[in-house]
Amino acid sequence: MNEKRTELADLGEFGLIDHLTKDIQTIHPETLRGIGDDAAVIDLGNEDCQVVSTDLLIEGVHFDLTYMPLKHLGYKSVAINVSDVCAMNAIPKQITVSIAVSNRFSLEALEELYAGIKAACAEYKVDIIGGDTTSSQSGLMISITILGVAAKEKVCYRSGAKEYDLLVVSGDLGGAYMGLQVLEREKEVFKANPNIQPDLDGHDYILQRQLKPNARLDVVGILKELGVQPTSMIDISDGLASEILHLCKASNVGCHLYDEKLPIDAKTSMVAIDFNLDPSMCALNGGEDYELLFTIDQKDVDLIASNPNFTLIGHMTNAADGIYFIDKTGSAHTLRAQGFKHFES
Amino acid sequence: MNEKRTELADLGEFGLIDHLTKDIQTIHPETLRGIGDDAAVIDLGNEDCQVVSTDLLIEGVHFDLTYMPLKHLGYKSVAINVSDVCAMNAIPKQITVSIAVSNRFSLEALEELYAGIKAACAEYKVDIIGGDTTSSQSGLMISITILGVAAKEKVCYRSGAKEYDLLVVSGDLGGAYMGLQVLEREKEVFKANPNIQPDLDGHDYILQRQLKPNARLDVVGILKELGVQPTSMIDISDGLASEILHLCKASNVGCHLYDEKLPIDAKTSMVAIDFNLDPSMCALNGGEDYELLFTIDQKDVDLIASNPNFTLIGHMTNAADGIYFIDKTGSAHTLRAQGFKHFES
Repeated sequence: MNEKRTELADLGEFGLIDHLTKDIQTIHPETLRGIGDDAAVIDLGNEDCQVVSTDLLIEGVHFDLTYMPLKHLGYKSVAINVSDVCAMNAIPKQITVSIAVSNRFSLEALEELYAGIKAACAEYKVDIIGGDTTSSQSGLMISITILGVAAKEKVCYRSGAKEYDLLVVSGDLGGAYMGLQVLEREKEVFKANPNIQPDLDGHDYILQRQLKPNARLDVVGILKELGVQPTSMIDISDGLASEILHLCKASNVGCHLYDEKLPIDAKTSMVAIDFNLDPSMCALNGGEDYELLFTIDQKDVDLIASNPNFTLIGHMTNAADGIYFIDKTGSAHTLRAQGFKHFES
Repeated sequence: MNEKRTELADLGEFGLIDHLTKDIQTIHPETLRGIGDDAAVIDLGNEDCQVVSTDLLIEGVHFDLTYMPLKHLGYKSVAINVSDVCAMNAIPKQITVSIAVSNRFSLEALEELYAGIKAACAEYKVDIIGGDTTSSQSGLMISITILGVAAKEKVCYRSGAKEYDLLVVSGDLGGAYMGLQVLEREKEVFKANPNIQPDLDGHDYILQRQLKPNARLDVVGILKELGVQPTSMIDISDGLASEILHLCKASNVGCHLYDEKLPIDAKTSMVAIDFNLDPSMCALNGGEDYELLFTIDQKDVDLIASNPNFTLIGHMTNAADGIYFIDKTGSAHTLRAQGFKHFES
């Protein structure tokens, strides 16, 4: 090992991944896209591509079993992978599920987890084709890899946005984050007895957004029906601001995002205000909404604007113009990501 | 959660996986094989199949950083996945690599790990197409999913062995296990200072078998050149005995395995005797040799018997005849697996 010691927290999660993978090159011609998008893309030698994505969920980092029922965790672990496939405009087909558990967990606990995994697979029509189950020295870890398929000309990358394209988001934002805030507050109650499952009554909408997020596979179908091919797409896992920065960087464009356009459910706004938080900031930086963020050519604006699933929230500009959040007074602020940074202490 | 609590240790690793996955069915016609072999198999809609396998390595369960250099660990984590692809008679193509690390690890430590991963990918011509890197609350965890390709008629399952087929193994057995014994003995020395990397001088062969196992991708090529299509195949990760039981169960056949035929390197035998262990028992139950175990039709016996890479070690029988280990005196013993059982306390 080298003498030098650089702390992982100094790089942050994205910085670390960039550093470790920056010199990776692919050699097989069928590997059309490697690291750097929501999923890798493999040429299937016919009119279709395969997309491949993987996600790792670690207890104490990505989830807290104090308030996360195991069945919901199983469901969510599949849904967030399906979301990555949707972000490529592809249809999910198969997953592998690897689980490490300490002997703190019983067979019945794992059955609950698997019940959630199977429910999500039934919902999204995904085959469980393999996996590994092993012991860990502490806690629970879930690693899922997902395979999906799309016609070659339908695959959406992060890199296709052009100047003048319109920025669109599905559903509404900030709910998952506010659900987390409610759960964190209630955790203090549960701490007295870690075996109590959280009471999910009240705050139903935002709790569901956090505990049982829905991958927008329906959006892939709607776009197909409308005949709209997004020029770029990404799913919202780390927060709208972070994802916009990813799209702009990959596509080499700038962006104007309008505060007044942000789709925020009234229930989300009310809880945000209760917590003395600005609803717009929750929508921008909350993360885990698993909505789809995409850009469209201006010619498709009427098809998208008239569909209740979508909201136009901004437009892409020349890269040199920068990336701005335009607040309700019309003032422009440089957009910054303040999403989760797991390596910070 | 249910009231009942069943301990995971009561089921063991294979029992747990069987229990959790026994009712899983696949719905997509292109999913040719799901759970239950070395890899899943997906129809690519042309003359080829894709094979998919995944492996999870957990610190303190599957590896011990006291004596496992991180670069070797990275190499091994790829090699064992490549081995699963080889066991399907397929060629590896792409992997995803997910890593969870605690802040105990520095960036330089992860660079070492990745250097080993990249070295193995170069060796086996595998593209790294994705992954996830995140923090953990304790220790290091590596989850790799591998994709490979084979012509449809070349894919080997565990289930194709027939009565009278011959049982063949590549390379030699027991070395990785004896390497582990030496390392465990030396660990007492390292315990005084956990930062010392193990001295790899002496016992080179068996240490290499343990620390830098070689996936037998060459065997896939040799079989192709010889024009031999194995009737069934599996790789030796848990030990010869355990793998024979898997083949027999999947193929519904019995087996006679001959002690005197077991290929054991002289260096392995010598160290086994030093440790007061029976070399044959080390070959049978040691595991981690990552050699290929396969069955062939009798018509191919001359092609295989004359090749220095292979040893004929037994033959398959009617399932009702049972599965026997024939010792050097000619006595038959029921074959039992005594491989690693990670869930035992």
